[in-house]
Order: sequence, then structure tokens, then C-alpha cells
Amino acid sequence: MSSVSQSSNWRALAADKKHRQEAAIPKEWRIPPVPDTQLDVTSVPEKCGLLTEKELEITNTDVTTLLARLSSAQWSSVEVTLAFYKRAIVAQQVVNCLTEIFVERALARARELDEHLKTTGRVVGLLHGLPVSCKDMIRIKGLETTMGYASWVGKYNEDNSVIVDILYELGANPFVQTNVPQTLMWGETNNLIFGRTLNPHNRSLTSGGSSGGEGALLAMRGSPLGIGSDIAGSIRIPSAFNGLYGVRPSYGRIPFSGALSILEGSDTSPAVFGPIAHDVASVKIFMQAVLSTKPWLRDPLVVKKEWDERAYKLEEHGGNGGKLCFAICWDNGMVVPHPPVRRALEMTRDALVTAGHRVIDWVPHRHAEMYEILNAIWAVGAEEQKIVTSTSGEPILTSMDPNEPVPEDFNVHKAATTPTPASALWQKQKAKRDIREEYLARWENTAKATGTGRPVDAIISPVAPYAAPPHGSNRDISYTAMWSALDYPSFAFPVTRVDPALDVQTPRDKFLSALDEEIFNLYDPSKFVNASVGLQLSGRTLEEEAVIAMTELVDAALKSFRDQ
Amino acid sequence: MSSVSQSSNWRALAADKKHRQEAAIPKEWRIPPVPDTQLDVTSVPEKCGLLTEKELEITNTDVTTLLARLSSAQWSSVEVTLAFYKRAIVAQQVVNCLTEIFVERALARARELDEHLKTTGRVVGLLHGLPVSCKDMIRIKGLETTMGYASWVGKYNEDNSVIVDILYELGANPFVQTNVPQTLMWGETNNLIFGRTLNPHNRSLTSGGSSGGEGALLAMRGSPLGIGSDIAGSIRIPSAFNGLYGVRPSYGRIPFSGALSILEGSDTSPAVFGPIAHDVASVKIFMQAVLSTKPWLRDPLVVKKEWDERAYKLEEHGGNGGKLCFAICWDNGMVVPHPPVRRALEMTRDALVTAGHRVIDWVPHRHAEMYEILNAIWAVGAEEQKIVTSTSGEPILTSMDPNEPVPEDFNVHKAATTPTPASALWQKQKAKRDIREEYLARWENTAKATGTGRPVDAIISPVAPYAAPPHGSNRDISYTAMWSALDYPSFAFPVTRVDPALDVQTPRDKFLSALDEEIFNLYDPSKFVNASVGLQLSGRTLEEEAVIAMTELVDAALKSFRDQ
Repeated sequence: MSSVSQSSNWRALAADKKHRQEAAIPKEWRIPPVPDTQLDVTSVPEKCGLLTEKELEITNTDVTTLLARLSSAQWSSVEVTLAFYKRAIVAQQVVNCLTEIFVERALARARELDEHLKTTGRVVGLLHGLPVSCKDMIRIKGLETTMGYASWVGKYNEDNSVIVDILYELGANPFVQTNVPQTLMWGETNNLIFGRTLNPHNRSLTSGGSSGGEGALLAMRGSPLGIGSDIAGSIRIPSAFNGLYGVRPSYGRIPFSGALSILEGSDTSPAVFGPIAHDVASVKIFMQAVLSTKPWLRDPLVVKKEWDERAYKLEEHGGNGGKLCFAICWDNGMVVPHPPVRRALEMTRDALVTAGHRVIDWVPHRHAEMYEILNAIWAVGAEEQKIVTSTSGEPILTSMDPNEPVPEDFNVHKAATTPTPASALWQKQKAKRDIREEYLARWENTAKATGTGRPVDAIISPVAPYAAPPHGSNRDISYTAMWSALDYPSFAFPVTRVDPALDVQTPRDKFLSALDEEIFNLYDPSKFVNASVGLQLSGRTLEEEAVIAMTELVDAALKSFRDQ
Repeated sequence: MSSVSQSSNWRALAADKKHRQEAAIPKEWRIPPVPDTQLDVTSVPEKCGLLTEKELEITNTDVTTLLARLSSAQWSSVEVTLAFYKRAIVAQQVVNCLTEIFVERALARARELDEHLKTTGRVVGLLHGLPVSCKDMIRIKGLETTMGYASWVGKYNEDNSVIVDILYELGANPFVQTNVPQTLMWGETNNLIFGRTLNPHNRSLTSGGSSGGEGALLAMRGSPLGIGSDIAGSIRIPSAFNGLYGVRPSYGRIPFSGALSILEGSDTSPAVFGPIAHDVASVKIFMQAVLSTKPWLRDPLVVKKEWDERAYKLEEHGGNGGKLCFAICWDNGMVVPHPPVRRALEMTRDALVTAGHRVIDWVPHRHAEMYEILNAIWAVGAEEQKIVTSTSGEPILTSMDPNEPVPEDFNVHKAATTPTPASALWQKQKAKRDIREEYLARWENTAKATGTGRPVDAIISPVAPYAAPPHGSNRDISYTAMWSALDYPSFAFPVTRVDPALDVQTPRDKFLSALDEEIFNLYDPSKFVNASVGLQLSGRTLEEEAVIAMTELVDAALKSFRDQ
């Protein structure tokens, strides 16, 4: 294959796919152009005139209520699907968050669901009639999954990922697929087919990544519930940057089988699926519903472990209504968080103390070493990227900065790559295990300091050292990567937005690293207008139920604290 | 370091260690030499005169009864420990099964346990007073762990493996450590420090490996319960070859943290600990006791999953007393089992059918491919062996055949090694995952054929294609490795012994491979006198409780079938 044919190949593939995507948007759903100067576009769905009053009501409704109205046939699946589809298409036109668009197919599915309920009097399953958006790595039979690679245009799926089979069985309606960064290994969302996804609260900011399409879509309320994936923050970062709720479950809780991914075969740093949503309740509904289908009988990597209601009742954390002790990780010793993030941590501490809980400091341990280990593991994935892109000659993006040019075609081949020997990688993986062991011992050891008689119940930490930053500047994922490496289920929740009056930077002249200094210099409230700040709550491995219950509690404490 | 000093170094280290081991045996426990021509030495403990009647009674008692008598102070921990220690030392003198010998320390611990019970009226834990033998990779504070490497002589432990901490908390008494093959990657047991462990039923046969010291010790009833480890059969093979019960649990059920091992950092083919015992009940007691300590709070790789009594009651298998459907894997398509193994499978089938259960055939799927993948993963471990042996210049054994000479010093360095690139290994690991997915789908798919409305409840298969074979001829571990690769908990149980009258080989002129032919030619009843034949029962991942319950049931069916 010559480089000339490769070059024309990827451009043609990308152009073809983008053209087909645009053609899939019903003409009558086109809205008048919104000027680029309008940064906050969250009000566009309400103002553009495409959605009826009822459609706006439906799309502004939470999942709990939606499911109640769907199962009682108060709202039909067709009208709910249509409402969210229209709003998703509005979102697409202002923040570019979608990949696969298949209106007729989703409406046909909705009609089937309505018909089933009408004729049998029974719902198909726990998620009857609910539209669910899926990140563009989740395979749906008959659709393409490009996962941000022009090279994968035309890759039609002959079957569903297991999670899609389960969604169908539960009566859900997967209705759109959402944008991702090329290679998935970015905390922002841009690729050579679909382009960049923007943050609805301020389009000059990133929507985060790699589940950035989900984040932007949900922030526009173009979906009631989305499924993202997370290797090192890819659910939590877009959740935090878009003011949403999203959980990275432990390995082996939600089936991943049959999905496309990266780092395939790396048994030490796999991706996990998890929900992105508008509230904690939706996350709980999703987790309970998926676990009710016994996913370990569909995916051998899923842990045989049902939804544990006792764990959700916080039985191992002093029981419901008891006093908990949270540890706050103010700073991971690598990058100092910006003032708005610091303020979010302080608010959360004050809210928890006001609610009667204890809060102590978390002392980070070997975070920088763990981050280096992860980077060494991920570096092996570069081989895979070369293989994938070689079929079309597609260049591999080297930056998410809009001002940096796209590299020349297939530039990755210019770099001499030194393959990592497996034995060297095993040494890294061994060190990773050692850090996990030490971290567990340290967690257990906090029992002396909590005053509850138990070790710390959960750790609360930044999702990122900044609020949603300008495009191209999400350079550090160490805050989320650490909990992935430790396999701690981690739930991102929204806390506040940047407030120029409150979030004033104190000058520093000492920095932890060049990156720390660079990130310090990034902060300027005028660049972060309306930017969301999220935090994450992390629990013990396979303790999803308790993590959900504790996030509920933190969220409620924050709400009542803000209302004071 | 010159090769001369290396050479003298490993020999000196090995000789020193062996000398110290021999010195640790109390002089008065030396028994008269048993002639090499006596192959079956299982009666030596009863006949040698060292053990009193009561000591013989104690060492012939099952764990359930031992624990009852220990907790009621009917027997003291000191007398039980002493009895087993004496018998273990007898075993050592005829089958060479021990590594660490520490009589005074174990008796001191026993005295403490007795004192505790006397003064508090309460047992220390569920295993109060029980002597437990531990494979020589389990680290006990203050003792050496050489793990079969002369290079590791003098490697004293500054702390315990987590499993040892747990044994102490449960009131058990780790009292001896047992022999292993150098590198652990053999299904037989021989190394350059302690030499070869023999099979007590016929000393011309192997005791198996890598937990061969445990197997031989228990077959001599020199321990009531042992802990072995299993990467690809290392618990099940010595269990089968010594007429014992032993389970390979799923990954992450029993804590491995703090143990020495091989393939360190390979997150895809780790070792797991499991019990080797005289009956199914002992295995259940061990598993329940360890899980009662919440080992996931000590080892981050342990799955947070308590002992599940409902699973033990076979709730997902039609409930206790219901009719089950077992699938027999007669042959894995790689090596055809010898006649005694075939007969053991037939006996088991007939016993189960007689007991009212259904038995169907298991169709193996991609076993040879999986075995190749495993071998590719294990090959990476050769780097580690070079590093370990380089410190003393110790040669790496290339055969377990007693007639083959030990290689020259440090021969492994002569072979040019091509490091496996991590990306190539990931491709293998991806293929492994694909096979796991296909295997799960096939298992689910058996529901059509069982007649119970459920998929097959368990798979019964050979542990090896032969009964305990002559030293140097255990060349195939594919029957156990497959279930490890699939992470199926697998319980080895004894069925029969080789019977020259019944076990007649039918001539074959077609073979599946050169190894299949070689193994066919190995069979000759005169070489297998008194050799044990074991089978294994495999269940679904993390279904240890049901696997124990089903093995109980198969064992009872076999016993009543034999008594007919």
C-alpha cells in the first residue's frame, strides 16, 4: 500500500462517514445556526422551537419518574424516545456530541415496546422504554463502530456487545452513540471523522474524555442515561466537566465483553463500563438492573456477585443514618488543584461536617510512581494504534489543542518504537500490586484516626486539578488514574461552578514539577466562565453499592448546605 | 562474579541448607533405614515404632474430629502437634517431602494455644490447635523460604504471608514446610537443595508437583491439612497422584499476598493457594475459616465475597438432594488418557447414574490453543529464572528424569533468549479471553441437553492422562491447565488405583501428536503398581461453595458404588 493511497483512503473514509451521519439527521430537525460567540448553549433546546412543551417536559424529567410513567403507559416509549432524539439532535448541532444516528430504528424499537406493554400488560424489563445513549465503542448489531478511527469506517457489527443485549432484555432503547477521541487515550474528545465535542456550558471548554460525547449530550439533556467507559478517568472526567454524575465501577462488575476497546489483552489496565447520569438514583437503577440479569453468565470476566442490598444499606459502614468518616485527598502530591477545586473540597467538607459526619485528611501514597507504572503499561498500546491506523494511513493525533495542526499522514511510523519486553512490563505490574497492597494496609490503618471504630468509609478527591478547562489543556489525569490502578469504585458528582469572585489564585513560586507549574499558570477565571467542578468519592474494590449510598449522602449534604 | 565462584557458591549454599535441615531433625526421631526396594512406604509410620498408639490414633483422625477434640481440650494442641510432627519426620525419612523443620517453635506455639484455651475457656479461632503444613513458598516470619532455589538459601522472612497471619489468627499451627520443584514450573518435585520427593504408595513414582511435598506428606498422614499453590495443576496433580483431595479455587478467593512465587507481575496466569486434604470436609473447613476472616481486607486481589451458604446448599443447582447433570470430559483432544483413568471416569459415571444423576459428554473446545497460549505466557518467566539463579550460578533443571544428568552450572545463560514483546503477549491474552467467552457460551448452551432445565452443573475430567507416573514422565499438564486458564474452581478427588487385571491397553496406531504417542507408550501396568488415579470436578468461576458440595456428592456416590 503506497502512502498516497493510504492518505486518500483515510480522508475519503472520514468524509464518507461524516456525510452519512449528517444525512441521518431529519431535515426538519435542523435548527437555525447558533453563533460561535454563544458559549453557553444549554438553553438552546428550550429556545430553538423544535421541541414541544411536552417534549421539553419529558427531557427534563429524571429517570426514576420516566420509568414510572413509561411502565404505567402514562408516556409512551415512542414519545419519550422521540423527545430525547430531537433534543440529542439539537445537542449535536451545537456541541457535536454524536456519532451513530438511527432515528427510524430507535422509533421502531419504541413502538415494539409500547406494543408489548399494551398487549401483555407487562413491561419488558426494569428499564422499559428508556432511551439510553452509548459511547461509540459499544457494538450494536447492524451499526458501524468506528471508535474515533477513520480506519474503522465501514466496520459494521454482526452482533451486539453483551451490555447491549442486556439493555434490550431490560426493555431499554439504545438510541444514539456518542463521540470519543481517536485512540480513546485522551481526557478530551476529538477525532478525524467527527471532529471535536464541545462543552455545553461553555463551548470554549472541553467536554472531557474519553466519554466526552456522553458528557456533552447529557449536559444538553439529550439523553436520560448514558454508558461510558473508563480506563483511567474516562467516565469521571466528562461527568465532572459537564456537571453530571458518573461512576467507574470495579473491574468485573459490568460486562464489557463484545465491546471494541484499546489496550486489548492488557489484563492489568482494562476499560470498565459505567453509567453517566443526571442524578445518583439513575446510577443505582442502572447498576441494579444490569446486575439483575446475572451478567457473569454472559461475560467470564464479570464477578459472580449480585446487587447487595445490605451493602447499599451501609451495613459495613455503621448502618444507614450512622455517622461516617470521610477522608479528603486535597492534593495528590503531583499537581496542586486550582482554587475552584479547592473550594469544592472545602464546601464538601463543610457540608459533611454540618450533616454530622467526620472528615479527616487523606495522605496520598506513591501516586506519582503508580502514574508512571500506568504510563509504562499504556505505552505498549502504541503498537496497537499503529496496526489500526496502518490500514488507512490515518495520522495519530498528538495534541488536543485546536491551534496545533493535525500531524501529517500516518506520522506515528516516523517515530522509532522500542517494543516493551513483557518481562519488563511484569516488573511494573508487580510494583503496581505492591502499591495496591500498601494502599490497602494504609486504608485499614486509618481506623485509629476516624473515631468511628472503622477505617475511613470513603475517600473524596478532585476528579481533575481544574474545572472543565479550555480545549487542549486537559493534561493531567493522575487524580482519576490512581483509583483505577487501585481498582476502587469511584463516583464523580458535581459540586459547584467556577466563581471568579471566590476562586482567586494565590501566587506560588515553588512547583512540584513542570506540569504543576504549567497547570498553575493555566488558571485564569476568565478562561473558566461557567465551568463545572466535580469531585469523586472512592470506596473499596467491589463495594459499588456502598459507594452509591455514600455518594447519595454526600450529594444530599451538599444540597442542603447550599440551600442554607 | 566469575563462573567459578558462582559454581562453588550454589553448591555451598545448597549443602549448607541441607545440612541444617538434617540437623533440625531430633536424633531420637531417626528411624531404621527402609530398604530402597520397599516401594510402598505408607505403612512405615505404623510399623517403625516411633509413634505411640495414641499418636497413631491422632494422626489417623480426620480434621473435623481433630478440631472437635482440640476445642474441647480432649486432646491438647501439644500432643496433636507432636504426633503429626513425628509422623512428618518419618515421612521425610522415606519420601523426602519436607523443607523447613522447626519442632521447638511449633511446640511452643501449641503450648500457647493450650494455655489460651485453658485460661480463657475459649479457642483462638476456627482452626484451634490444628497443625497445618505449608508449601515452601509461603513465607513464615523468621524462617527461610528457598522455594527450591539454592540462590535463595539464607532468605529469611521478616514477616508472614497473609495466609500465615490468617492461620495464626484462626488458631492453626503452621508446623512444617514442604518441598517444591526448582522454578515451580514442573508437575514433579525435585530441586538442587532438597532433592526429589517420592510417592509414598510407590517410591518409583512421582509425588507430582509443584505441591509434591504436600502430596507426599499427606499421603503419609504426616499432616492433617496442607496448603499448596496452583498455576496450572500444582495442587490437583499431587492430590491425584497421592490419593488425596485438593482444590484449586478461583483467582482472588484465598489471599496470596506476601508469598514468594514465579511469573510475578503476570496478571494473567497467577498462582492461587488452596488446601490439600484427606477428605472433602477438611477442604470446606479451610475455605470457610479463611473466608470468615474477610481476607479482602488484607490482600487487594481477594474478591470481596463471603462464604455463601446458599451456594453450598446448591441453590443454583436445583437445591440439595436434587438431580444434577454432570458432563464428563473423557479426552481433551490432545492426549488420550491411559486405561486406569478411563476406568475411573467410567466408575464415576456409573456411580453418579446409580445415585440418580444425569451424565452427558463434555465436548472440549480449543484446549490445544489455550495450552499454547499458556506456554507463551509462561515462557516470559524464563527471564525471571535467569535473574534468580544468576546470583549463585545455580543451573536450571531441564528434566525431572532421574537418569538425566543435572545440567552444567548456570546453563540457562547459554541459550540465547528472545524476549517476548509485551504487545505480542497481549495478543495471546486477548485470544485467551476470547476462548473464555466461547467456553462460557458453550457451557450455557448445554442447558438444551441436560434434562434439568439448567446448564451442566459441573464438568468431571482427568487430572492427568495417567495415574501417578514414574519419575521424569509427567510430561503433560494440559488437563489441569485448561481449567486454570478458564478460572474454573476445580476439585481433585481420588477414585481408584491402577489394577493390572482391569486396566488393559488397547493397541492404537493413530495418535494425536508425538506426545500422545509417547504417553501411550508409557503405559505398562507393571510400572504403575499401586498408583493412584484422581479426577477433578470443575465448576463456574467463584463457585467454590457449589464445587465443594458437588464433590462431596460425587465422593459419596463413588463410596456407595464401591461398597455395592
